[in-house]
Amino acid sequence: MLTLYSFGPGANSLKPMLALYEKGLPFTPRFLNPAVFEHHEDWFKKINPRGQVPALDPRRQDHHESTVICEYLEDVFPNDRPLRPKDPYIVAQMRVWTKWVDEYFCWCVSTIGWERMVSGMARAPLRRGIRGEGRAHSRSPNSRPNGATPAPASPRKCWRRRCARSASRSRGWKNALSESPWLAGPDYTLADICNFAIANAWSAASPDIVNPKATPHLMDWLARINARPAVKEMFAKAQRETLAPPPKAATA
Amino acid sequence: MLTLYSFGPGANSLKPMLALYEKGLPFTPRFLNPAVFEHHEDWFKKINPRGQVPALDPRRQDHHESTVICEYLEDVFPNDRPLRPKDPYIVAQMRVWTKWVDEYFCWCVSTIGWERMVSGMARAPLRRGIRGEGRAHSRSPNSRPNGATPAPASPRKCWRRRCARSASRSRGWKNALSESPWLAGPDYTLADICNFAIANAWSAASPDIVNPKATPHLMDWLARINARPAVKEMFAKAQRETLAPPPKAATA
Repeated sequence: MLTLYSFGPGANSLKPMLALYEKGLPFTPRFLNPAVFEHHEDWFKKINPRGQVPALDPRRQDHHESTVICEYLEDVFPNDRPLRPKDPYIVAQMRVWTKWVDEYFCWCVSTIGWERMVSGMARAPLRRGIRGEGRAHSRSPNSRPNGATPAPASPRKCWRRRCARSASRSRGWKNALSESPWLAGPDYTLADICNFAIANAWSAASPDIVNPKATPHLMDWLARINARPAVKEMFAKAQRETLAPPPKAATA
Repeated sequence: MLTLYSFGPGANSLKPMLALYEKGLPFTPRFLNPAVFEHHEDWFKKINPRGQVPALDPRRQDHHESTVICEYLEDVFPNDRPLRPKDPYIVAQMRVWTKWVDEYFCWCVSTIGWERMVSGMARAPLRRGIRGEGRAHSRSPNSRPNGATPAPASPRKCWRRRCARSASRSRGWKNALSESPWLAGPDYTLADICNFAIANAWSAASPDIVNPKATPHLMDWLARINARPAVKEMFAKAQRETLAPPPKAATA
């Protein structure tokens, strides 16, 4: 039985979680509570020494990159509701999309999300010295094991501008979604899942940028995904985090 | 016949070029001269509107990400000297390595290389307004179509420190190469090719960081790859750029 170590159904944790639900694969969910930095606790660092979620299967320590986990599931379970196309050309398009979200889009959105939602709670433990592990709050290479030092506060306005560009640029989302209901080719693929993981929260957090008038194609696409049975099941069943301040003992 | 649009055999251009040589696939090389910003010329932007190399095959405009092109070649020509393992677990390890070089290591090295080798030549055209296309010189998301504005001069010392960490960190290169001659599993894979593309130039540019005493495992690995027949053939045949200043007309 696969075990998925993750936060709640959002951002990078959502990617393999939704892939598992879409493919109908049984798995043991193991929720980690970010509010108490559970992913930095010793028991989890025995599973993933980098202290990052999501991670799949305790015997597979290298399975800690969300998009790599998704491709791994396709490699191992290719016939359980395939989420990777058969045509190599469309697979390449899919990978350009999953690469784009990992290298650019995710950072635009998560930088804003970090500052808005978890900054006060998380900065204290970070200042105490949890460095070189887990996500940091800017698009510096801090999530990499080598880029250990958290970056200074990010220029939020700059990231918001980039987010806005992501929604409005002529190529990309709009072009892809005017040709097909899905991002890469005619079928629902990992391109949709990996971008949905980031864009779904973005639409809620930035209604000034993502809304039915400004980005109708994007809103329709989000609605199509949210209406899928697997997505509904995931959101109904998955444990969610409450980003409350950690207990006093943890912040002392 | 495949056509590969690229710069000389280095950095991202090297990745698909070496994959093609290793797999023994015939292709038409089309060298673009970065010294005159040929990748920004109209004829090439009809092939890849983003003005980036490498790009594969004029009919396939989305094939402009070097690592995606390498995986595409494995998808289409799986039996011509495979460079992707069969075991899905090792494939995932390979992808963690190709992801690491794309998201972190490449930027450490290219930021330094940019400042050292092409800064004077390239900054003038950039100042004239070639923006939002091609590579920029820092690990901001400038190479993405949405991150259009080149970043200010990068903190070179900071990137050099990150480079040094890349070479010396206890996990990673050293661990992988002490278990196997190659980075991901027992065989030579895209993990080696994609990291070699960046690390080979790095060893020449930063002998204070990468040298037989400080990083023997890394030097041995580079030597093993440089000794491969396909690598020798590629370096012997591929056209190289001369990073001379562009003609006066182009700098006026």
